[in-house]
Amino acid sequence: MKAIVNVALKQGVLDDQGKATHHALDTLGFKDVVKDVRIGKQIILELNSTTESEAREEVVKMCEKLLANTVIEDYDIEIVG
Amino acid sequence: MKAIVNVALKQGVLDDQGKATHHALDTLGFKDVVKDVRIGKQIILELNSTTESEAREEVVKMCEKLLANTVIEDYDIEIVG
Repeated sequence: MKAIVNVALKQGVLDDQGKATHHALDTLGFKDVVKDVRIGKQIILELNSTTESEAREEVVKMCEKLLANTVIEDYDIEIVG
Repeated sequence: MKAIVNVALKQGVLDDQGKATHHALDTLGFKDVVKDVRIGKQIILELNSTTESEAREEVVKMCEKLLANTVIEDYDIEIVG
């Protein structure tokens, strides 16, 4: 079973990497196209779990313990396959 | 219009960050649960484009010029809203 975890900074938390990327896109000629850029992580996990609920439960634990810093980041879990 | 770009290392390219995370999860007690971990970037763009095809075309250009290193990374574009 496969889990896709998207970790993004919470709204209101300064996204340095996004700001720098936005600036770089502006200088590359996309100034009129791009309004905002935010950058997060996508973590793809291959799991031994056999059921979706079991997989989700384990992944929530991983997020809370390691994958996300819940003070400043939100996470979103999708179980596939 | 909003675009979500997922950038991931190509299969076969060593994913240091994924390996380190896998190891950390193992030591946290998820050794029997996790088979593999890969880590990529998720870039969320707010665009001024009015049509989906126009948005996609611009985002492909951004990926080729800046957002992805196409020698070692694959990207995947989803246009939403």
